[in-house]
Amino acid sequence: MSATRLLVIGADAAGMSAAHQAIRAAEAAGTKLAVTALEATGDTSYSACGIPYWVAGDVSGGDALVARTAEEHRAAGIDLRLGATATGIDRQARTVTYREAGGEQVLGYDELVIATGASAVVRGWAIDPGTGQRYAGVAPVKTLTDGAVWLDLLAGLPEGPGRVVVAGGGYIGVEMAEAARRRGHEVTVITRARVLSPLDPDMSARVEKGMREAGVRVVAGSPVVRLDVADGRVRGVYSADGERYPADLVVLALGIAPNTGFLDLGKLPSGPSGGLRPGPDGRLADGIWAAGDCCEVRHRLTGTWTYVPLGTHANKQGRIVGTNLVTPGALRFGGVLGTAITRFAVGATYLEIARTGLNEREAAAAGVEVTSLVTEGSTASGYMSEADPVAVKVLAARSDRRLMGAQIVGGRGAGKRIDTVATALWHGATVDDLAWSDLSYAPPFATAWDIVQVAARRLAERL
Amino acid sequence: MSATRLLVIGADAAGMSAAHQAIRAAEAAGTKLAVTALEATGDTSYSACGIPYWVAGDVSGGDALVARTAEEHRAAGIDLRLGATATGIDRQARTVTYREAGGEQVLGYDELVIATGASAVVRGWAIDPGTGQRYAGVAPVKTLTDGAVWLDLLAGLPEGPGRVVVAGGGYIGVEMAEAARRRGHEVTVITRARVLSPLDPDMSARVEKGMREAGVRVVAGSPVVRLDVADGRVRGVYSADGERYPADLVVLALGIAPNTGFLDLGKLPSGPSGGLRPGPDGRLADGIWAAGDCCEVRHRLTGTWTYVPLGTHANKQGRIVGTNLVTPGALRFGGVLGTAITRFAVGATYLEIARTGLNEREAAAAGVEVTSLVTEGSTASGYMSEADPVAVKVLAARSDRRLMGAQIVGGRGAGKRIDTVATALWHGATVDDLAWSDLSYAPPFATAWDIVQVAARRLAERL
Repeated sequence: MSATRLLVIGADAAGMSAAHQAIRAAEAAGTKLAVTALEATGDTSYSACGIPYWVAGDVSGGDALVARTAEEHRAAGIDLRLGATATGIDRQARTVTYREAGGEQVLGYDELVIATGASAVVRGWAIDPGTGQRYAGVAPVKTLTDGAVWLDLLAGLPEGPGRVVVAGGGYIGVEMAEAARRRGHEVTVITRARVLSPLDPDMSARVEKGMREAGVRVVAGSPVVRLDVADGRVRGVYSADGERYPADLVVLALGIAPNTGFLDLGKLPSGPSGGLRPGPDGRLADGIWAAGDCCEVRHRLTGTWTYVPLGTHANKQGRIVGTNLVTPGALRFGGVLGTAITRFAVGATYLEIARTGLNEREAAAAGVEVTSLVTEGSTASGYMSEADPVAVKVLAARSDRRLMGAQIVGGRGAGKRIDTVATALWHGATVDDLAWSDLSYAPPFATAWDIVQVAARRLAERL
Repeated sequence: MSATRLLVIGADAAGMSAAHQAIRAAEAAGTKLAVTALEATGDTSYSACGIPYWVAGDVSGGDALVARTAEEHRAAGIDLRLGATATGIDRQARTVTYREAGGEQVLGYDELVIATGASAVVRGWAIDPGTGQRYAGVAPVKTLTDGAVWLDLLAGLPEGPGRVVVAGGGYIGVEMAEAARRRGHEVTVITRARVLSPLDPDMSARVEKGMREAGVRVVAGSPVVRLDVADGRVRGVYSADGERYPADLVVLALGIAPNTGFLDLGKLPSGPSGGLRPGPDGRLADGIWAAGDCCEVRHRLTGTWTYVPLGTHANKQGRIVGTNLVTPGALRFGGVLGTAITRFAVGATYLEIARTGLNEREAAAAGVEVTSLVTEGSTASGYMSEADPVAVKVLAARSDRRLMGAQIVGGRGAGKRIDTVATALWHGATVDDLAWSDLSYAPPFATAWDIVQVAARRLAERL
C-alpha cells in the first residue's frame, strides 16, 4: 500500500491542526500518510492574537507565542518547507506550484489542504509609490515579524511619549491602543464607524468611554484616508473629514483578508470576501479541503456565509479536516456565533468586552425583528471587593422569544460570561431558558441571579 | 372587590421574592392584594452565603449582607411581623397560628406561602445537657446572629493564633476554614468523607491539597463525634476514630435542614429530608405554596427529588410563586442541576471550585453509566501572566454521549466556566456539542480551545 500524499498549504493553526490530526487518525486507522506542508513565512503555529500583548511587554518574546516550532512539526513526521509560497494549483494533475529561494517547484498530492490564512489589509495610502514599500513608521500587526517590527519601532522613538495613531478600531486596534498607552505613548484611535463595531453603538460607547478615561483619543466616524509624510517617514495622518493628527507611528489595524489570490476563485466555492466556502466536513472540491482564515464560515443562527477569521474556528476546522481526511464525514463544523472577547486595560481602567450572536445591525440584515435591553449590574455580590460594574445587552427575536445575541462590557470576570450565552445560543435557547437556568453563585463570583440571567429575565419581561 | 389576603411565612429570599413579585404582578393586573409576612428572627432578606466573608473581614458589616431591610419591605406595603414564629396551619379554616412576644396569634389567609427556610444542623454533642444550650465556643454559620457571634468568638480569643476546628467539609466548612486561616488561626477541618463531597474524590483531592498548602489540617473519613469540654467551654473535639484535636472554637458546618417541623408533613407533599415538594408552579396544596430552603427540588437530569438548598433556587422559586399567585401557571421551575461554586483563597493559595450536574456517585445512583476524564490546562494562553492551572472533569453517559456533569478546580477565572457546562446540560447537550461550540478566546482569558472544550473533546474521543 502506497502512502496517501497529503499536501498542506499554510503551517499555522488550521493547517497544522489538520496535519497532526490526520497523522494521529491515520495511525489509529493503520493507514499510511505522507504529509508535506508549505509555509510562505519562516514561522509556524503561532498566536497572532498574542502579538499586541507581546508589544505591550506582557510576553517574554516572540518565541513564547509559538505553539509548535518547525522542529516539532518535523519531529512528528511532517515534511515542512518554510519560505515556500504556493502560486497555483493544477486540479487535473493534482499538483501545486510553489516558489521558494531556489525557484519554482511543483509537488503532487492525493489530498490537498488549503490553509493559507489571511493577511493584514494595507491601504494604498500606507505605501510609498516610489519604493512600493510601506512608509517608515507604518506597520500592521499580524505576523511574528510584524510584532518584532513594532518592538523596534517603539524602541526607536526618542525619549518621552511618542504619538501613536491606530488606524482602525477593531479588536486589534483596541488591543494595540492598550499596548501603546501602557508603554506611555500618546495614542489616537481613528476609525470609520466606532470602536469595536461588532458591538452595537450603545455598548461600543461604554468601551470608548473607558478608552478616553485612560487617555486614549478616539476619533470615530471618519477613517484615515491619507498620510502626511516627510523623507519617507510618517509625520501625521488625515482623516476623511480633513483633520490632521500628528503621528510618529501608525498602526494598520484595518482588518485582514483571505490569502486566496493564488487560486482561481471562479472555479472554487468562495464568497465576496475572497474567502473559500468548504462544506461542513471541510471539503472544498474533489481532493481539496480548506480551513482557517482563508475561509468564510456559516453563521449558525442565520445560515448565511460570513467572514469571521478567528483562531478558534481555524483550530476546529483544521481538526475536522484532519479527521475527515482519514474518516470521511466523521466530524462536521457546526458554524459560528461570532463569539469574541477582548479587554482594554490601562492603569486603573479595566474593561472586559465580549459579544456573541447577532447585533442589531446583523439581526436587521437577517430579517429578524429583535427586542434588546441593556442591563447594568455587578460581577459579584455588592458587598464584596470583587464586585465590578458590568453591562449586559441581550437581544431576542420578537416572534419566538429566541435568544439572538448578547454583548458584555464590564470589570474582571465579566467577559467570559459570554460563553454562557453562546452555549444557550448554540442550542437555540429562548431568552426564558437563559433567565431561569441553574447558574453558579457565590458572593465573590456573582449575584444570586447572575447578571446574565437578570439581563435575560428583564428582556423576557419586555418581550 | 376585597383584597386577597396573602400570608408569607419567612421573610428571606424565597418569601420576600414571592411577596414583592406578587405585589408587582397584582399591580400590573389591577387586582388587590394584602400581604402579611411572618419572620421568626429579626432579620430579613440577607445573604447567608456572605457570612463567611464577613467573618473573614472582607465585608464591612452584617448590615452590608442585608439586601432589603424590614423598613424597605414595609415601604412596599408588606405587613411584616418580626419575631413571629409560625407554629401551625389550619388548612380547613385557612389560618396560621404563630408565637410572638405577646403570646400566640392566629391569622387568616386566602393564599399561603411557606418559605421558612432551613436551620443549621446542630448535633447532640454540641449541646450542654445541663443548659440545653450549645457549649461556649461552639457555633454554626447560618444567620446574621451567627455571623456576629463568630466575630465575637474570634475577637475573644487570647493573643496569638487560636485553634479553630471546623466540623464539616462542605461549602460553608471550606469557606469558614478560609476565613479563620486568613485571620491567622490554626485551622483543622474534620469531615466524615472528604472536603467538598459534591466533588468526586479525584477533584476533592485537589482542593484538599490546596488547603493543606495553605496550612489547614484536613482530617477526612472520620467525623466529629464528641467534644472535650471543661467549665462549659469546648477544649477539644474527638473524631470517630478516637483522635482528639485541641480546639478553642468549633465551627458547626454540618449542613442545614428544612424548617418544616411546625407542619403536619404527613399531610403535605414532602420528602425524607423533611423538605416540601411543591409542583413546578410552586403550589404545594390548595391555597398553599412553598419556596426556598424548606423545599426539596427536582433534579433536571434525573427527575428525582433532592435537597439542594441554595439562594439561587430560593430566589427563582419565590419569583415563580409570586408570579403564579396572580397569574396561575405563568412560570414553571425548571429543576436544578446542582450547580455550585466556591473558592479557597489563603495567602498565595487561590482555588476556584465549581461543579454542575451529576458526580460519579450520583450518576451511579441514577443508573447512568458514565465515562469521565480529568483534563488539566490553563485559564489563559500559557504566555500570559493570567495563565493559571485548571483541572476540568467531565462526565458523559456511555449510552448516548450526553453530558452528565462537570467539576472544575483551578485559578482565577476557572470557576465561572461551570456556567458554560451548566447551560449545555440545561439543554441536554452531548459532550460533542460542548466540545465544538463557539466559545470566546483571547490570550488573557482562555486558550484557543477553551479548557472546558478540551475537556469535553478529550472525553468525546474516549467514549
